[in-house]
Amino acid sequence: MIPPETHLQIGSLLFEGLDQIDLTGPFEVLSRIPNATYRIYGPNAAPVRDVRGLRITPDATLAEAPRLDVLHIPGGQGQEALMRDAAVLGWIRSQAAGASHVFSVCTGALLLGAAGLLVGRRATTYWNAVHLLPWFGAEAVDARVVIDRAEDGRTWLFAAGVTAGIDGALRLAAELRGDDAARAIQLGMQYAPEPPFDSGTPRSAPPAIVAQVRAATAGLTARREATARAIAAELGIPAP
Amino acid sequence: MIPPETHLQIGSLLFEGLDQIDLTGPFEVLSRIPNATYRIYGPNAAPVRDVRGLRITPDATLAEAPRLDVLHIPGGQGQEALMRDAAVLGWIRSQAAGASHVFSVCTGALLLGAAGLLVGRRATTYWNAVHLLPWFGAEAVDARVVIDRAEDGRTWLFAAGVTAGIDGALRLAAELRGDDAARAIQLGMQYAPEPPFDSGTPRSAPPAIVAQVRAATAGLTARREATARAIAAELGIPAP
Repeated sequence: MIPPETHLQIGSLLFEGLDQIDLTGPFEVLSRIPNATYRIYGPNAAPVRDVRGLRITPDATLAEAPRLDVLHIPGGQGQEALMRDAAVLGWIRSQAAGASHVFSVCTGALLLGAAGLLVGRRATTYWNAVHLLPWFGAEAVDARVVIDRAEDGRTWLFAAGVTAGIDGALRLAAELRGDDAARAIQLGMQYAPEPPFDSGTPRSAPPAIVAQVRAATAGLTARREATARAIAAELGIPAP
Repeated sequence: MIPPETHLQIGSLLFEGLDQIDLTGPFEVLSRIPNATYRIYGPNAAPVRDVRGLRITPDATLAEAPRLDVLHIPGGQGQEALMRDAAVLGWIRSQAAGASHVFSVCTGALLLGAAGLLVGRRATTYWNAVHLLPWFGAEAVDARVVIDRAEDGRTWLFAAGVTAGIDGALRLAAELRGDDAARAIQLGMQYAPEPPFDSGTPRSAPPAIVAQVRAATAGLTARREATARAIAAELGIPAP
């Protein structure tokens, strides 16, 4: 927990083709953290489209961001296009160096990996990409939220896929402002989920549904694998 | 379930001061319904700000909307400013008349009430507003999602507060395209929630937290109550 009187700068990265709920799920929590400024930063001032077309406008550009205390990196299919974007990766690296808390959702973890930040970390990501984490030097953990406390004092939080960002953000709120602050936010957003089916993970979903979703994203998964291998080689990370 | 070959027009209402996840939670599901066009309609083409500042741009204006099969009405504090907005209420009334499915999230249900559409319905809304439903002629049901099948063949779905929209949208997806379609969407969004605290409803949250959240929104609740009473009188609905 950070002293309540310390004002926090919290920022999310916005990019074209993200999965919007990787951002908007945490938004609901991060925008309600007591004594904090929360802003969304885009490569430029223009609105971006999420992978299904939702148009979101950033509050400011990457260049305008102050040093952030909390850095939030969402994922989604558009993450793949940023895996070699020196400007975005440089911003992530620089902000992560100054932050006390780094929080990725879904394949946002792969962006941290491409920035060279996952070496030696315990991490998680989307269920269909978790096998890629070792290429970035991380230990893949099969959990909805992974909290890895680094020796340098930084706290790393990794949420699994998509809606796991809500759970991760509430954990983050508790880390920053204590359990009761997180509980108040949870009540405000009436977060007492009742999924109508038990189909939220590849373990629980019917095998035919898992096969269908895997097939629908097979091309993307193959591209992500090729990128992970290439980046591992460039970063000098031994193949897992 | 609607015949799979029938193309669906699905639309969400966007308005200033909505609670963004009332929209973006369902967005994650509705934008992935097979054989459907999903669009977000705003009073005009300009971006709106959610209650915490997220800027979202509508796809089209209310006037440009076709007859919708599925009408989604989010809520949030900004709902109160629309409770006497003849243009928006007229649009809701007209679209609801042509739709097969009407789906509200959170205090979006109060907008349906102001449009005179809740008389005789079983409904729910945000936990801090559920006592207002009888003023609009509805039976308040204490459930996360309420499905009310009307005699005229229309299906009404009411999600409780904020994040309940995700559960409601998955129920809606199953109504429209069958359980397996909803299961595939659920797996795609890795929706296997693990809230870190049991604080998502006023029954489960610590009493001090409930009192704190109630106090923080007492002014808004009082305004909503006054509006509900006045609209009940105008609509000729007997006081509960």
